[in-house]
Parts: sequence; C-alpha cells; structure tokens
Amino acid sequence: MIYLDNAATTKPSEKAVNAIIKAAECFGNPSSLHGLGLEAEKLINNSRKIIAGKLGVGEKNILFTSGGTEANNTAIFGVCQAKNKIGKKVVTSKIEHPSVTSAFLELKNRGYDVEFVDVDSDGRINLEVLSNILDENTVLVSIMHVNNETGVIQPVEEISGLIRQKSPNACFHCDCVQSFGKIDVKPNKMGADLITISSHKIHGYKGTGALYVKDMRMIRPYIFGGEQQWEMRPGTENVGGILAFGAAADEINIDTDKMKLLRDSMKEYLKIIPDIKFNGCDEYNSGSILNVSFVGIKAEILLHALEAKGVYVSTGSACSSHKPQPSHVLTAMGLKKNEIEGAVRISFDSWNTIDEIKKAAEIITDEVTNIRRYM
Amino acid sequence: MIYLDNAATTKPSEKAVNAIIKAAECFGNPSSLHGLGLEAEKLINNSRKIIAGKLGVGEKNILFTSGGTEANNTAIFGVCQAKNKIGKKVVTSKIEHPSVTSAFLELKNRGYDVEFVDVDSDGRINLEVLSNILDENTVLVSIMHVNNETGVIQPVEEISGLIRQKSPNACFHCDCVQSFGKIDVKPNKMGADLITISSHKIHGYKGTGALYVKDMRMIRPYIFGGEQQWEMRPGTENVGGILAFGAAADEINIDTDKMKLLRDSMKEYLKIIPDIKFNGCDEYNSGSILNVSFVGIKAEILLHALEAKGVYVSTGSACSSHKPQPSHVLTAMGLKKNEIEGAVRISFDSWNTIDEIKKAAEIITDEVTNIRRYM
Repeated sequence: MIYLDNAATTKPSEKAVNAIIKAAECFGNPSSLHGLGLEAEKLINNSRKIIAGKLGVGEKNILFTSGGTEANNTAIFGVCQAKNKIGKKVVTSKIEHPSVTSAFLELKNRGYDVEFVDVDSDGRINLEVLSNILDENTVLVSIMHVNNETGVIQPVEEISGLIRQKSPNACFHCDCVQSFGKIDVKPNKMGADLITISSHKIHGYKGTGALYVKDMRMIRPYIFGGEQQWEMRPGTENVGGILAFGAAADEINIDTDKMKLLRDSMKEYLKIIPDIKFNGCDEYNSGSILNVSFVGIKAEILLHALEAKGVYVSTGSACSSHKPQPSHVLTAMGLKKNEIEGAVRISFDSWNTIDEIKKAAEIITDEVTNIRRYM
Repeated sequence: MIYLDNAATTKPSEKAVNAIIKAAECFGNPSSLHGLGLEAEKLINNSRKIIAGKLGVGEKNILFTSGGTEANNTAIFGVCQAKNKIGKKVVTSKIEHPSVTSAFLELKNRGYDVEFVDVDSDGRINLEVLSNILDENTVLVSIMHVNNETGVIQPVEEISGLIRQKSPNACFHCDCVQSFGKIDVKPNKMGADLITISSHKIHGYKGTGALYVKDMRMIRPYIFGGEQQWEMRPGTENVGGILAFGAAADEINIDTDKMKLLRDSMKEYLKIIPDIKFNGCDEYNSGSILNVSFVGIKAEILLHALEAKGVYVSTGSACSSHKPQPSHVLTAMGLKKNEIEGAVRISFDSWNTIDEIKKAAEIITDEVTNIRRYM
C-alpha cells in the first residue's frame, strides 16, 4: 500500500496509540477531586503545554475541541456572538473548508452580511478584492492557511496586515488544519487571533482538535456546561484523544525540504503524461499536496483504478467526496469543467519515501494510459 | 483500590481499548471514497447499529457527538433554532446537569422565557408544578432520566404524557447519560423525542456521546460543515471513540438486582453511623448512586481521607466539583446547609463486588468516626 491521501487523514503513530492505551489506565475524570482525577488533569495539561509550545503561545490560550470542524464553528460563531453589538459583516474566502463555508452560510441565514473573497488562478486570495471588502463594520475574517485541495499557502501576514489597517474591530481566524505540522504555524507571527488545528492530520486520532484564542474575551463559548476549560469549552475532556494529540504534536519535525522533494519528484514523474494540468502554484506550496488534472478522465475512475494497485489518493477533499458537486476550490480558481472532473489530490507526509513516490508515479502513469485507451 | 465514583466516569473495558487500537489500523477517513474510507465507515455504522439496537430505535436517528455535553447542547439549541418562529418558552428542572442548565441560562440571555421546575424532597420532579408551567407556547422541555447526584429516576413517562397533553408544539429531550446501561432506556416507551447518552459512563472512552433524535426535522444542526452524519453533525467522525462506544454498548448487561443489592448493602452497612442522612429515595432509584450526608463533616475532607485508604467517591458531580458552590440538586431538594456540605456520592457499577462494598463501608465508617473525633 502506498498511502498518498494524507490530507484526508493520517495513521495514528505508535506513540499516539500508546497514549490512548495509557488513558484507559489513567481513567479518572479530570474534574474529579481525588487523585485519579488529578492524574488525568495533569496528563491533559501536559498535552496542552506541548501543543502551545509548538505554536509559541500560552497554554491558557488553547481550547481542546472534538476536531477541526468544531474548532472552526466555535471561532466563527463565538466571535460573532461576542461582537453581536459591534457589527454584522463577516468575511471569508471562496476556497475554505466546508466547516468554515457552511458556518458562514448559516450566518447569512441569520441576517449577517457575508462576503466571499475571490482567489486568483494560482489559488491564492486576491488581496485587492479583500482590501476593498474590509471596513470598520467587519467583525470577523476567516481565511485558511494552507488550502486542503491544492496545498497553496495563503498570504496570511498580508491578510492580517490589511485587517489591522482597515478593520480594527475584526478578529482574524485562520484554519491551520492543513498547515500545522507541515509548515511553521505561529499565530503571533501570522497576526492571527484565532487558529484551528487538528490531531488526525498529524498522526493523532480523529475526534480531537484545538482552537487557539489570543484573548478569550474575543469569543463567547459555543458549547455550555460545566467548569472544564475555564467554561469556554466545557464537557468532560476527551482524555485519550488529547493525550494522543500531545504525543503526535511532540513528534512533529517539520522537514520542508523532504516534503518539497516528494512533491517535486511526483510532479517531475507525471509531467510526461499528455493532457495534464497541475493546479495551484509551486512558489507558495506547503509541499504536502499536489493537485493535478488528468483532462478528460473522471477522477473517481482513476482513484479506483489506483486503489486496485494499492495507491490511495483522493478527489477533492474527503469531507465533500460523496457530493456529486464540482470542487468549489478549483471552480473558484477558474478551471474548466473537464479539468475539475479530472482533478486528483495527491497528498504527502513525512512518512512517505521517495521510492513510494516513484512507484506510485509509475502506477498513475500506467493507469491514466489504460483508462484513456478505453475512453 | 475500590472505585465507587462510577457516575463520574468508568474505566474503558478491554473490548473498548481493543476497538480503539483497531481504529489505528483502520485509519481511513470515513468520508474517503477508497477502500480504507469505506472500511472505517462500515465500522462506524456497526457501532451505530449496536447503539440504536440497545435503544430500540433506527440507526438513522443516532448522531454521534463529542460527548453528553455537546449532545445536550445540540438538542437544546437545535430544537430552539428549528422552532424559532413557533415560540420562545422552554422548560427544564432545577436538578439538571450543568450542560443542560448552562444552555438554558444562555437561552435566557438570548431572550427566551425559561422555566425551572421544582423537585420534591425525594429528588423527583413536581409534576403539578410542571403541569402548570406547560402551555402551547412551550417548544422544548428538557428533563433528565436519572439524576447524576442522587440516582433518582424521574417520572419521564408521566412527563411526556403531560407534554403531549398541554404542549403539542414542544419536543421532549431527556438526558439519559446516567441511566443508559444502568436501567432500561427506550425513547419510544419513555415518550422522549431526543435523548442524550455518553460512552465513558458505560466503560467506553471519554470524548464520545450520542444524541437520539426521533425526527431530524425537530432540530437544526448545531455544528456546520461537511457531509458527515447527513450534515446534521458534520466533522470527521471520532472513529476510535465511536468503535469503543459500540464495543462498550455491546457489553451492556443490565442487572438491576445486582445494582440494588450493592446500593442496599452499602446503605445497610452505613446506617449504624450517627447523624447521617440518605438523600433521594429508594423507590425510584437506578441502584447506581447512593447519596449520603454525614452531617457536620465537610465532604471534601472525607473524600480525601477515603482516598488515602484506596476508596474513591465524590462530592456532588465531577463537572462542578472545583466550584465552591453548594450542590444545586440537594439545594433544590431542600436540604440544610450542613447536610449539603457533608454529602458524598457513592456510585456503583456492575464491575463492583459485594466484598468491595463491605470493605468500603468499613473504611467509610472508620474515617467518619476519625474525622468526627477531631472536629
């Protein structure tokens, strides 16, 4: 098996698995006053410390959530609720993850003035369009760090600069699910007030994510309950998931050169295939994703042909793969219908080897040739 | 160690741990179109089937959540959002879990007409008070099944009967976190439209719960995102947690006689202690909780003394144990200040043995005597 669908999810590492097994032994409720509870609480705090350390932020600025989707929802609805009386204008882009886009569409339902910023053909936010949209009534801007279909890095520092300049009342939320562990993610450097990260994209378990919040007064809680997490995200903590998240985060070792080598090699190998289009851009890429259109081929057919040979890739993002709609990301980038239909996402991880890339490229080349022969 | 804090949390069973280890092997994203994704999806569906089977409901009526707190919030805010135009009157009781109470307080902040129904001294909802509150404007009633501090079973069938009669526009949500696995929980028999259950109370892992919804049109989603769970609770599923939940639910074997024997034995042993008060009632009790006041003693001091001897109990609920406030449940039942301050929750599980109960009772008796000697 050659697993090249790492943007969808990754395999839990041995340390993450051991951490979740350990949680079954240290099974106290972290809120319990007795030693079993304190032990669980300590372990959680250790994970929080590791993750905060990776982001270069304070531990008290990290809220654990059930994943990226909940973290994005908490950021978006939490800021809007906190700034309820200041304004109702909110801004996002046309290439966000469904958990951001859907939340903004819900805000629209609730009477908010929602703006979706365009991207250029290289998959990057158009800063001029953004600049014209931003104003003093804007209370929230949510733009992702690395796009989950193309791997394109967004100009977050320029975005936060524009926000400070034109929208002093706005918070800047950045979905970093695809960047955390792949490239440097430092909210302070990026100028982000809130960021979202997820455990299962970095060899932790599914079901755990975190929201960094620069100042908890920026949000109202989204889930209400007991005293956990300073009452900002109550509910008995997912101790096992959090310990696995900490273990996985602790193992992060960003190797940009290796990632770029994997991606560049794949690109080099595939280049010989006719009627092919690489989507996004190389200059601003996390190195973790190669989005490529095999024009005229239905991507799903290629996906299953590759799977039969042990190579796992995806069409668009996993979260909308069962929907028969064309990718909203590639549509926003202005791709043609047949380019979108033939687009495959190949996503890398530091666990992949250069040999796997070579082998996978051969299989892809063969299968594309085969499918085209019978078209 | 004699663990008698099972209402706070339980130890994951061997099968639950094995399930979560298995999830690290079947690590595909359930939304992925390839075989790794389908395999994960199948495993989730199997858990859903087991849990739906235990509740006697359809699989498509089960939404997995990050736990009881999120499930309660989803039920409460989800129903209110769906019935936004019908009415703004909502009803709960004075003895709910903080995740219900806090959500209702938030609704109050947002302009809802919120009613908190009284309980009698035995810890049961006063049906006459409820009946007088219910009217045609009521859109939601949330009353728990088994109270988490006293183990008292609420008259849910009578409650649902009153709701049908007086509040035809209302949905009835029932928090069954403390009843599921302990006594029979069948939403149809109870007349509940929505119920909440949690995995870590039945030897699954923390971080997974479920919301049963009789008809998905009764709620708006609370979290927005991708296509998962029919878009009613999107986000990549917590596969490991869900598999562990299914494994734990599969092992449920309700043994009311044993539970009652454990509780009755403890009560019998403790009866000899002077200045003691058993709170709640025996007639309507899940058998899983004995709430007892050692009058004049500070419960926290007793808790730590017992812990030193290897006996784990709690003061009130874990979710509010760090708060220096008196129990809202015992307050609502009309207990005196010193009765509330001396109240300890001893909570049982089918894993406990009668020998453990005997041993623990001896230790409790000794420690109470010791503490009183030095008062």
